[in-house]
Amino acid sequence: MSVSQLIKIETSGVWTGGVQTEIKVRQFEPFIVDEPKSLGGKDEGPNPLEFVLAGLSSCASVMIALIAKEQKFSYEAVEFKNAGELDVRGLRGVEGVSPHFQSVNLDVFIKTEESDERLEQLKEAVEKRCPVINLLIDAGVNVTSNWIKQ
Amino acid sequence: MSVSQLIKIETSGVWTGGVQTEIKVRQFEPFIVDEPKSLGGKDEGPNPLEFVLAGLSSCASVMIALIAKEQKFSYEAVEFKNAGELDVRGLRGVEGVSPHFQSVNLDVFIKTEESDERLEQLKEAVEKRCPVINLLIDAGVNVTSNWIKQ
Repeated sequence: MSVSQLIKIETSGVWTGGVQTEIKVRQFEPFIVDEPKSLGGKDEGPNPLEFVLAGLSSCASVMIALIAKEQKFSYEAVEFKNAGELDVRGLRGVEGVSPHFQSVNLDVFIKTEESDERLEQLKEAVEKRCPVINLLIDAGVNVTSNWIKQ
Repeated sequence: MSVSQLIKIETSGVWTGGVQTEIKVRQFEPFIVDEPKSLGGKDEGPNPLEFVLAGLSSCASVMIALIAKEQKFSYEAVEFKNAGELDVRGLRGVEGVSPHFQSVNLDVFIKTEESDERLEQLKEAVEKRCPVINLLIDAGVNVTSNWIKQ
Protein backbone atom coordinates (compact mmCIF):
# COMPACT_ATOMS: atom_id res chain seq x y z
CA MET A 1 0.00 0.00 0.00
CA SER A 2 1.23 3.48 -0.86
CA VAL A 3 2.08 6.11 1.77
CA SER A 4 -0.73 8.17 3.41
CA GLN A 5 -1.74 11.28 1.51
CA LEU A 6 -3.41 13.38 4.17
CA ILE A 7 -5.26 16.56 3.35
CA LYS A 8 -6.71 19.00 5.85
CA ILE A 9 -10.16 20.59 5.52
CA GLU A 10 -10.97 23.61 7.72
CA THR A 11 -13.88 25.94 8.46
CA SER A 12 -14.67 28.55 11.08
CA GLY A 13 -17.90 29.99 12.46
CA VAL A 14 -19.43 32.66 14.66
CA TRP A 15 -22.70 32.34 16.58
CA THR A 16 -24.96 35.20 15.45
CA GLY A 17 -27.74 34.79 18.05
CA GLY A 18 -30.64 32.39 18.45
CA VAL A 19 -29.76 29.14 16.68
CA GLN A 20 -27.94 30.92 13.85
CA THR A 21 -24.27 30.65 12.86
CA GLU A 22 -22.21 32.39 10.21
CA ILE A 23 -19.71 30.04 8.58
CA LYS A 24 -16.52 31.03 6.78
CA VAL A 25 -14.65 28.75 4.37
CA ARG A 26 -11.34 29.90 2.86
CA GLN A 27 -11.73 32.98 0.64
CA PHE A 28 -15.49 32.60 0.13
CA GLU A 29 -18.25 34.91 1.34
CA PRO A 30 -19.50 33.81 4.77
CA PHE A 31 -22.88 32.09 4.72
CA ILE A 32 -25.71 31.74 7.24
CA VAL A 33 -26.81 28.45 8.77
CA ASP A 34 -30.11 28.70 10.63
CA GLU A 35 -33.21 26.68 11.50
CA PRO A 36 -36.78 27.02 10.24
CA LYS A 37 -39.16 28.89 12.54
CA SER A 38 -40.77 25.56 13.46
CA LEU A 39 -37.43 24.53 14.98
CA GLY A 40 -36.80 27.82 16.81
CA GLY A 41 -34.82 29.72 14.17
CA LYS A 42 -35.31 32.79 12.01
CA ASP A 43 -35.09 30.70 8.81
CA GLU A 44 -32.40 32.86 7.23
CA GLY A 45 -30.43 29.94 5.78
CA PRO A 46 -30.43 26.16 5.36
CA ASN A 47 -29.93 24.18 8.54
CA PRO A 48 -26.86 22.10 9.52
CA LEU A 49 -28.23 18.77 8.27
CA GLU A 50 -29.32 20.34 4.98
CA PHE A 51 -25.66 21.32 4.50
CA VAL A 52 -24.62 17.73 5.22
CA LEU A 53 -27.06 16.53 2.52
CA ALA A 54 -25.78 19.27 0.18
CA GLY A 55 -22.37 17.70 0.82
CA LEU A 56 -23.76 14.28 -0.10
CA SER A 57 -25.06 15.19 -3.58
CA SER A 58 -22.09 17.38 -4.42
CA CYS A 59 -19.65 14.70 -3.25
CA ALA A 60 -21.39 12.11 -5.43
CA SER A 61 -21.17 14.63 -8.27
CA VAL A 62 -17.39 15.03 -7.85
CA MET A 63 -16.93 11.27 -7.71
CA ILE A 64 -19.07 10.72 -10.83
CA ALA A 65 -16.86 13.19 -12.74
CA LEU A 66 -13.66 11.59 -11.44
CA ILE A 67 -14.65 7.97 -12.00
CA ALA A 68 -16.41 8.59 -15.34
CA LYS A 69 -13.08 9.92 -16.60
CA GLU A 70 -11.26 6.78 -15.40
CA GLN A 71 -13.88 4.49 -16.93
CA LYS A 72 -14.29 6.58 -20.12
CA PHE A 73 -17.99 6.78 -19.28
CA SER A 74 -19.69 9.65 -21.08
CA TYR A 75 -22.68 11.58 -19.76
CA GLU A 76 -24.36 14.86 -20.60
CA ALA A 77 -26.21 15.86 -17.43
CA VAL A 78 -26.79 14.81 -13.83
CA GLU A 79 -29.37 15.88 -11.29
CA PHE A 80 -29.65 14.88 -7.66
CA LYS A 81 -32.41 14.62 -5.09
CA ASN A 82 -31.87 13.39 -1.59
CA ALA A 83 -33.85 13.04 1.59
CA GLY A 84 -32.85 12.02 5.11
CA GLU A 85 -35.05 11.08 8.02
CA LEU A 86 -34.19 11.55 11.65
CA ASP A 87 -36.01 11.10 14.90
CA VAL A 88 -35.82 14.41 16.77
CA ARG A 89 -36.15 12.64 20.11
CA GLY A 90 -32.40 11.87 19.78
CA LEU A 91 -31.26 15.49 19.77
CA ARG A 92 -33.78 16.25 22.50
CA GLY A 93 -31.90 13.81 24.73
CA VAL A 94 -34.11 10.71 24.75
CA GLU A 95 -31.87 7.74 25.65
CA GLY A 96 -31.43 5.03 23.04
CA VAL A 97 -32.42 7.21 20.06
CA SER A 98 -29.65 8.16 17.63
CA PRO A 99 -29.50 11.93 17.16
CA HIS A 100 -28.53 11.67 13.50
CA PHE A 101 -30.06 10.20 10.34
CA GLN A 102 -31.91 6.87 10.47
CA SER A 103 -32.04 6.71 6.69
CA VAL A 104 -30.93 8.69 3.66
CA ASN A 105 -32.02 8.18 0.09
CA LEU A 106 -30.13 9.60 -2.88
CA ASP A 107 -31.65 9.75 -6.37
CA VAL A 108 -29.25 10.31 -9.27
CA PHE A 109 -30.81 11.23 -12.65
CA ILE A 110 -28.14 10.82 -15.30
CA LYS A 111 -28.39 11.60 -18.99
CA THR A 112 -26.22 9.10 -20.81
CA GLU A 113 -26.20 6.70 -23.74
CA GLU A 114 -24.02 4.18 -21.94
CA SER A 115 -25.41 0.68 -21.18
CA ASP A 116 -27.12 -0.25 -17.91
CA GLU A 117 -24.16 -2.47 -17.09
CA ARG A 118 -21.66 0.38 -17.49
CA LEU A 119 -23.91 2.63 -15.40
CA GLU A 120 -23.97 -0.04 -12.68
CA GLN A 121 -20.15 -0.13 -12.71
CA LEU A 122 -20.02 3.63 -12.30
CA LYS A 123 -22.57 3.52 -9.44
CA GLU A 124 -20.67 0.79 -7.61
CA ALA A 125 -17.37 2.65 -7.80
CA VAL A 126 -18.95 5.94 -6.67
CA GLU A 127 -20.63 4.23 -3.71
CA LYS A 128 -17.39 2.54 -2.74
CA ARG A 129 -15.22 5.66 -2.92
CA CYS A 130 -17.42 8.70 -2.18
CA PRO A 131 -16.40 10.26 1.18
CA VAL A 132 -19.86 11.51 2.23
CA ILE A 133 -21.79 8.38 1.17
CA ASN A 134 -19.30 6.30 3.17
CA LEU A 135 -19.45 8.62 6.18
CA LEU A 136 -23.21 7.94 6.34
CA ILE A 137 -22.87 4.18 5.71
CA ASP A 138 -20.11 3.81 8.33
CA ALA A 139 -22.29 5.69 10.85
CA GLY A 140 -24.94 2.98 10.46
CA VAL A 141 -27.36 5.11 8.44
CA ASN A 142 -29.57 3.08 6.10
CA VAL A 143 -28.38 4.56 2.79
CA THR A 144 -30.25 3.76 -0.43
CA SER A 145 -29.62 5.14 -3.87
CA ASN A 146 -31.43 4.97 -7.18
CA TRP A 147 -29.64 5.78 -10.41
CA ILE A 148 -32.09 6.62 -13.14
CA LYS A 149 -31.04 6.88 -16.78
CA GLN A 150 -32.66 9.79 -18.61
CA MET B 1 -39.91 5.50 25.43
CA SER B 2 -42.07 8.02 23.56
CA VAL B 3 -43.23 7.50 19.97
CA SER B 4 -40.86 8.29 17.04
CA GLN B 5 -40.88 11.89 15.89
CA LEU B 6 -39.49 11.65 12.39
CA ILE B 7 -38.58 14.71 10.38
CA LYS B 8 -37.50 14.75 6.75
CA ILE B 9 -34.61 16.85 5.40
CA GLU B 10 -34.33 17.32 1.63
CA THR B 11 -32.03 18.96 -0.91
CA SER B 12 -31.60 18.85 -4.67
CA GLY B 13 -28.71 19.53 -7.00
CA VAL B 14 -27.64 19.95 -10.61
CA TRP B 15 -24.19 19.13 -12.02
CA THR B 16 -22.84 22.31 -13.64
CA GLY B 17 -19.78 20.82 -15.36
CA GLY B 18 -16.35 19.74 -14.18
CA VAL B 19 -16.60 18.79 -10.51
CA GLN B 20 -19.11 21.54 -9.74
CA THR B 21 -22.69 21.22 -8.47
CA GLU B 22 -25.39 23.76 -7.76
CA ILE B 23 -27.41 22.88 -4.67
CA LYS B 24 -30.92 24.04 -3.84
CA VAL B 25 -32.43 23.93 -0.35
CA ARG B 26 -36.07 24.96 0.16
CA GLN B 27 -36.69 28.64 -0.67
CA PHE B 28 -33.03 29.70 -0.48
CA GLU B 29 -30.82 30.91 -3.29
CA PRO B 30 -28.96 27.99 -4.90
CA PHE B 31 -25.28 27.79 -3.97
CA ILE B 32 -22.21 26.39 -5.70
CA VAL B 33 -20.16 23.47 -4.41
CA ASP B 34 -16.84 23.05 -6.20
CA GLU B 35 -13.26 21.91 -5.63
CA PRO B 36 -10.03 23.92 -5.45
CA LYS B 37 -7.96 24.00 -8.63
CA SER B 38 -5.47 21.62 -6.98
CA LEU B 39 -8.28 19.03 -6.83
CA GLY B 40 -9.47 19.60 -10.40
CA GLY B 41 -12.16 22.25 -9.85
CA LYS B 42 -12.68 25.89 -10.73
CA ASP B 43 -12.73 26.87 -7.03
CA GLU B 44 -16.02 28.75 -7.27
CA GLY B 45 -17.36 27.51 -3.92
CA PRO B 46 -16.49 25.45 -0.85
CA ASN B 47 -16.12 21.72 -1.44
CA PRO B 48 -18.47 18.94 -0.22
CA LEU B 49 -16.47 18.10 2.91
CA GLU B 50 -16.18 21.78 3.83
CA PHE B 51 -19.99 21.87 3.82
CA VAL B 52 -20.03 18.83 6.12
CA LEU B 53 -17.69 20.66 8.52
CA ALA B 54 -19.85 23.79 8.21
CA GLY B 55 -22.68 21.51 9.32
CA LEU B 56 -20.60 20.38 12.30
CA SER B 57 -19.96 23.84 13.80
CA SER B 58 -23.45 25.10 13.07
CA CYS B 59 -25.01 21.96 14.55
CA ALA B 60 -22.93 22.37 17.72
CA SER B 61 -24.10 26.00 17.77
CA VAL B 62 -27.78 25.02 17.60
CA MET B 63 -27.28 22.44 20.35
CA ILE B 64 -25.44 24.92 22.59
CA ALA B 65 -28.38 27.34 22.27
CA LEU B 66 -30.93 24.59 22.95
CA ILE B 67 -29.15 22.97 25.89
CA ALA B 68 -27.97 26.25 27.46
CA LYS B 69 -31.64 27.20 27.69
CA GLU B 70 -32.50 23.90 29.42
CA GLN B 71 -29.56 24.23 31.82
CA LYS B 72 -30.04 28.00 32.36
CA PHE B 73 -26.43 28.43 31.23
CA SER B 74 -25.71 31.98 30.12
CA TYR B 75 -23.15 32.94 27.48
CA GLU B 76 -22.45 36.03 25.43
CA ALA B 77 -20.56 34.78 22.39
CA VAL B 78 -19.34 31.60 20.70
CA GLU B 79 -16.83 31.03 17.93
CA PHE B 80 -15.91 27.78 16.23
CA LYS B 81 -12.92 26.40 14.39
CA ASN B 82 -12.74 22.91 13.04
CA ALA B 83 -10.39 20.83 10.96
CA GLY B 84 -10.70 17.35 9.50
CA GLU B 85 -8.03 15.14 8.02
CA LEU B 86 -8.57 12.56 5.34
CA ASP B 87 -6.35 10.30 3.31
CA VAL B 88 -7.14 10.96 -0.36
CA ARG B 89 -6.01 7.46 -1.29
CA GLY B 90 -9.46 6.31 -0.09
CA LEU B 91 -11.44 8.32 -2.64
CA ARG B 92 -8.91 7.40 -5.31
CA GLY B 93 -9.87 3.76 -4.77
CA VAL B 94 -6.97 2.34 -2.74
CA GLU B 95 -8.29 -0.74 -0.91
CA GLY B 96 -8.34 -0.63 2.88
CA VAL B 97 -8.26 3.18 3.15
CA SER B 98 -11.45 4.90 4.37
CA PRO B 99 -12.57 7.58 1.91
CA HIS B 100 -13.85 9.88 4.65
CA PHE B 101 -12.37 11.65 7.67
CA GLN B 102 -9.76 9.94 9.82
CA SER B 103 -10.01 12.65 12.45
CA VAL B 104 -11.90 15.86 13.11
CA ASN B 105 -11.11 18.45 15.75
CA LEU B 106 -13.62 21.06 16.90
CA ASP B 107 -12.58 24.11 18.94
CA VAL B 108 -15.36 26.01 20.71
CA PHE B 109 -14.47 29.45 22.09
CA ILE B 110 -17.22 30.51 24.46
CA LYS B 111 -17.59 33.79 26.31
CA THR B 112 -19.26 33.03 29.62
CA GLU B 113 -18.99 33.70 33.34
CA GLU B 114 -20.30 30.24 34.23
CA SER B 115 -18.01 27.82 36.17
CA ASP B 116 -15.77 25.25 34.50
CA GLU B 117 -17.98 22.53 35.92
CA ARG B 118 -21.14 23.99 34.37
CA LEU B 119 -19.30 24.41 31.05
CA GLU B 120 -18.27 20.74 31.20
CA GLN B 121 -21.93 19.76 31.73
CA LEU B 122 -22.94 21.79 28.68
CA LYS B 123 -20.14 20.25 26.58
CA GLU B 124 -21.10 16.70 27.60
CA ALA B 125 -24.75 17.19 26.72
CA VAL B 126 -23.91 18.81 23.36
CA GLU B 127 -21.53 15.97 22.48
CA LYS B 128 -24.13 13.40 23.43
CA ARG B 129 -27.02 14.96 21.49
CA CYS B 130 -25.57 16.85 18.51
CA PRO B 131 -26.55 15.11 15.24
CA VAL B 132 -23.43 15.97 13.24
CA ILE B 133 -20.91 15.25 16.04
CA ASN B 134 -22.57 11.86 16.51
CA LEU B 135 -22.65 11.13 12.79
CA LEU B 136 -18.85 11.51 12.76
CA ILE B 137 -18.33 9.53 15.99
CA ASP B 138 -20.61 6.69 14.83
CA ALA B 139 -18.69 6.54 11.53
CA GLY B 140 -15.52 5.78 13.50
CA VAL B 141 -13.93 9.20 12.99
CA ASN B 142 -11.56 10.20 15.80
CA VAL B 143 -13.42 13.28 17.04
CA THR B 144 -11.79 15.61 19.57
CA SER B 145 -13.13 18.87 20.90
CA ASN B 146 -11.70 21.65 23.02
CA TRP B 147 -13.99 24.09 24.76
CA ILE B 148 -12.14 27.25 25.70
CA LYS B 149 -13.64 29.84 28.04
CA GLN B 150 -13.00 33.40 26.90
